[in-house]
Amino acid sequence: MAAEPSAHALIAEHRTTLDQALEAIRTRAYWSPHPEHPKAYGENGSLGMAEGKAAFDALLGTRLDLGQPGTDDWVGGEVSPYGIELGVTYPHADVDTLLPAMKAGQRAWRDAGAEARAAVCLEILKRISDRTHEFAHAVMHTSGQAFMMAFQAGGPHAQDRGLEAVAYAYAEQVRTPDEARWSKPQGKRDPLTLTKRFKPVPRGIALVIGCNTFPTWNGYPGLFASLATGNAVLVKPHPRAVLPLALTVQVAREVLAEAGFAPDLVALAAERPGEGIAKDLATRPEIRVIDYTGSTSFGDWLEANARQAEVYTEKAGVNTVLVDSTDDYKGMLSNLAFSLSLYSGQMCTTPQNLLVPRDGITTDEGPKSYDEVVADLAGSVGGLLGDDARANALLGAIVNPDVKARLEAAASLGEVALPSREITNPEFPDAVVRTPVIVKLDGARKFWERTEDEAAYMSECFGPVSFAVAVDSTADGLELLRRTIADKGAMTVGAYTTSGEVAEAVEEVCLEECAQLSLNLTGGVYVNQTAAFSDFHGSGGNPAANAALCDGAFVANRFRVVEVRSEA
Amino acid sequence: MAAEPSAHALIAEHRTTLDQALEAIRTRAYWSPHPEHPKAYGENGSLGMAEGKAAFDALLGTRLDLGQPGTDDWVGGEVSPYGIELGVTYPHADVDTLLPAMKAGQRAWRDAGAEARAAVCLEILKRISDRTHEFAHAVMHTSGQAFMMAFQAGGPHAQDRGLEAVAYAYAEQVRTPDEARWSKPQGKRDPLTLTKRFKPVPRGIALVIGCNTFPTWNGYPGLFASLATGNAVLVKPHPRAVLPLALTVQVAREVLAEAGFAPDLVALAAERPGEGIAKDLATRPEIRVIDYTGSTSFGDWLEANARQAEVYTEKAGVNTVLVDSTDDYKGMLSNLAFSLSLYSGQMCTTPQNLLVPRDGITTDEGPKSYDEVVADLAGSVGGLLGDDARANALLGAIVNPDVKARLEAAASLGEVALPSREITNPEFPDAVVRTPVIVKLDGARKFWERTEDEAAYMSECFGPVSFAVAVDSTADGLELLRRTIADKGAMTVGAYTTSGEVAEAVEEVCLEECAQLSLNLTGGVYVNQTAAFSDFHGSGGNPAANAALCDGAFVANRFRVVEVRSEA
Repeated sequence: MAAEPSAHALIAEHRTTLDQALEAIRTRAYWSPHPEHPKAYGENGSLGMAEGKAAFDALLGTRLDLGQPGTDDWVGGEVSPYGIELGVTYPHADVDTLLPAMKAGQRAWRDAGAEARAAVCLEILKRISDRTHEFAHAVMHTSGQAFMMAFQAGGPHAQDRGLEAVAYAYAEQVRTPDEARWSKPQGKRDPLTLTKRFKPVPRGIALVIGCNTFPTWNGYPGLFASLATGNAVLVKPHPRAVLPLALTVQVAREVLAEAGFAPDLVALAAERPGEGIAKDLATRPEIRVIDYTGSTSFGDWLEANARQAEVYTEKAGVNTVLVDSTDDYKGMLSNLAFSLSLYSGQMCTTPQNLLVPRDGITTDEGPKSYDEVVADLAGSVGGLLGDDARANALLGAIVNPDVKARLEAAASLGEVALPSREITNPEFPDAVVRTPVIVKLDGARKFWERTEDEAAYMSECFGPVSFAVAVDSTADGLELLRRTIADKGAMTVGAYTTSGEVAEAVEEVCLEECAQLSLNLTGGVYVNQTAAFSDFHGSGGNPAANAALCDGAFVANRFRVVEVRSEA
Repeated sequence: MAAEPSAHALIAEHRTTLDQALEAIRTRAYWSPHPEHPKAYGENGSLGMAEGKAAFDALLGTRLDLGQPGTDDWVGGEVSPYGIELGVTYPHADVDTLLPAMKAGQRAWRDAGAEARAAVCLEILKRISDRTHEFAHAVMHTSGQAFMMAFQAGGPHAQDRGLEAVAYAYAEQVRTPDEARWSKPQGKRDPLTLTKRFKPVPRGIALVIGCNTFPTWNGYPGLFASLATGNAVLVKPHPRAVLPLALTVQVAREVLAEAGFAPDLVALAAERPGEGIAKDLATRPEIRVIDYTGSTSFGDWLEANARQAEVYTEKAGVNTVLVDSTDDYKGMLSNLAFSLSLYSGQMCTTPQNLLVPRDGITTDEGPKSYDEVVADLAGSVGGLLGDDARANALLGAIVNPDVKARLEAAASLGEVALPSREITNPEFPDAVVRTPVIVKLDGARKFWERTEDEAAYMSECFGPVSFAVAVDSTADGLELLRRTIADKGAMTVGAYTTSGEVAEAVEEVCLEECAQLSLNLTGGVYVNQTAAFSDFHGSGGNPAANAALCDGAFVANRFRVVEVRSEA
């Protein structure tokens, strides 16, 4: 096979990293091959800070020609949440030409085997890693993340999640050997002997439907899981966040071609404004795997309608933090304040509902009433974001007008404990930058299912909006937590308590309703952040998402194993 | 926990067997802890031949009281395909009482952990194994399998498949450690450190919908995969094949109780004649996993409607054997004859369409025309079944009137190469015993989609009916094979060829359409038989089944992992 020498070289280059990733997902200890610090880049072929910025600037206003078959037009109209028009155009695909071209490369990709595919995927990630500074600007100017977050979450953390998916995919495929000799004793007669060969085969073409807020972080797991298991991958980015995934596709195509495979194994499906091609693509018979991050309504639609495909969805949930008691009141407040502020609360993992007993909580600073807790949290957020430079660095920009509208409407839902504040970004004066609003609501059990408050806190209000919900007791808070996860789903749950009994009770709710729990976080780890190779993102067991990043179930059904057996 | 001492003892007793199973699924070499020979039983607590028969006889006409909560009636009306009325009655469940009772035991079962659950499952299988002779009669007199097949396929082979599922389930759950310490360096500052605990949690209650022909073999994988992953399991047997699964439920309940767990973790849902409870059960919100073996129409209904559950279906396919050439003509004929005859072709894996080039094939006995091949195969089947005693031992009984009707109608579909013959079973004169019919059909490419022949060979004709389909060439046969798998699905594909090129081509069809291939079988292994721990049953990648027995995908989504992380 033509690809072999090159694939062998890539295996030699990346096998150690793959083994380290395999070890990390087994131990769940901290590990990452992708540096988090911007200054770590600029040597050994990677772009430094200025080079990355220059590379991004050079992309603006250009046509990103990926060399895809069936390109019938050029489309693009991204406007950065920071105000600048990207002006990049992308190939628009005639899918009746593109999909067959993608299939054409699958046989060689399948026959290359799991290790060669993993090595090619790792080379793609390596080249993306080398361009982390460039990708950081692309993520920043599509998602509205502040630079540092776009750099880390859109760069090394996204690359980690991609690598994690490759590791799981590889491990899953090599559970069955390539070949086996089977010999069954027959008493005094000769044994029955067969030679058996096993080969992982892909489902077909996989579709990745990207999101606006985390194009790479949420896009890479599905993209790399599908590619590593032998599928071709069609990437349909969110129309507001095309560039980071288009660059990803470009790198993937380059690496595939250099390794002797068909570049069309990875392709981009950009769309015209309002074209809405996702539904058509998702129900094409060629599409056999779909990864989607976005709204619950479209996720539910995909699950119900894209029946020819394996569908992995991350939708929306209502994330809750239950506050019962703490022995580090300041640490709790500052930890929560950061969680609410980061990226203006535009993370699927940001807490929305803070359940606080009406009669207050016990703390290392003495008892605190509900009003005091809420006021202190408001003060903590206010303090964190009091300096405009720091606020800009934490908040980023509001990603789209819908979020801004929700934020503005939230103030009328109840008593405002902390009003949202407009902040100017001196570098990008057109950016819409807002601090979070905290609204007080009543979660008394007697009101459940009846009040306007209930309608507010039982809906996802995506953006910088949090509800401080007064509950009658911790026990009632636990019941509300249970009901919220069961009915609305949750990507994350947080809890603060000094009581072993309460900790056990909240853990039991999370075990029964299948939600990931962060308990008593008071330091530099936040409920809305997960680390690849160690933390699961989502559980796949409540309505917020039907899959977790990343586990065996996320990869095991992207391929099948075909056995060929014959007389030995 | 009360269960611990007992569970520990079971772990000590069964850990070695579990480790052997884990090794076997990794190497795919031959292995089984369950003896295939009837004489291997009768010592060390297992029932011997006479004891097993006596135990079965003692069941006849009795009420099988499983001690289930919510039992509101006693139902049962199984009539053996061999003519005898079983007269056993089973609990009919008020599911509104039974399902909550099943849930009540789940927390302790979940908290026991993967190893204890595996050990309990292995103890259940051990006790079933000890009663293999009794189960053999129960399977024989519900499925119509001949005794020896009921003994092996319904006994050790089914137990193997159950154990295989336990091994996969265990391996999947222990991929993530119970606990991890995560420490992320922060340059000169202290590292961020977290303690993380991970726990596999079940989906909920799993439903197993049994089939008529292989109640244990097809029922055990789902039952044990779900139970081993922490789910409660409700077993809804086919109304004609209740006894083998009711006994299974009885054993499971006994073992669970003895080990300190709630017996209601496994329960039976028998039904009144015509009650059709499967649809209601399958769409209950408590049911989160479904395993089903049976018709395509109900399997498709489950996949479309039981949206609250993970649904694993084995439906129907059209199995094909492509005959291109052979260097062992006699071996091929006798191998095929056995495959067509075993259990009167009432296996989901029995070949239906035999594609033979119109111009004949090359063999070690010289060229053979299509007519000669078909006549020789008919002769081979006739010879194999010429002796009535041997015929009875191979064929068993026709399982139900629908199969008999299809067999009788098949003779009018084309020229009959081998007529079906009625055979008397001296021991069971009411048994309906028939030899297979072979009908000649024309599969010329120009007729595709147009002829009555096409309508016949492109539908599943479950039972002792095979079609010798004349194709214009091997290449045309390959195309028909591809189309058959893609449109109708296939549990098995067979091929005979001496040409490396043809072997590669048929393998490529199977890889692309995702079907399991047996190549040039001429000895004592048959296309319709698979061995647990080594062969995959179905691929999960074509319309015949959405899952394979057994692989990672079959178990990985029956549970989820919940993480609880806190400051270290």
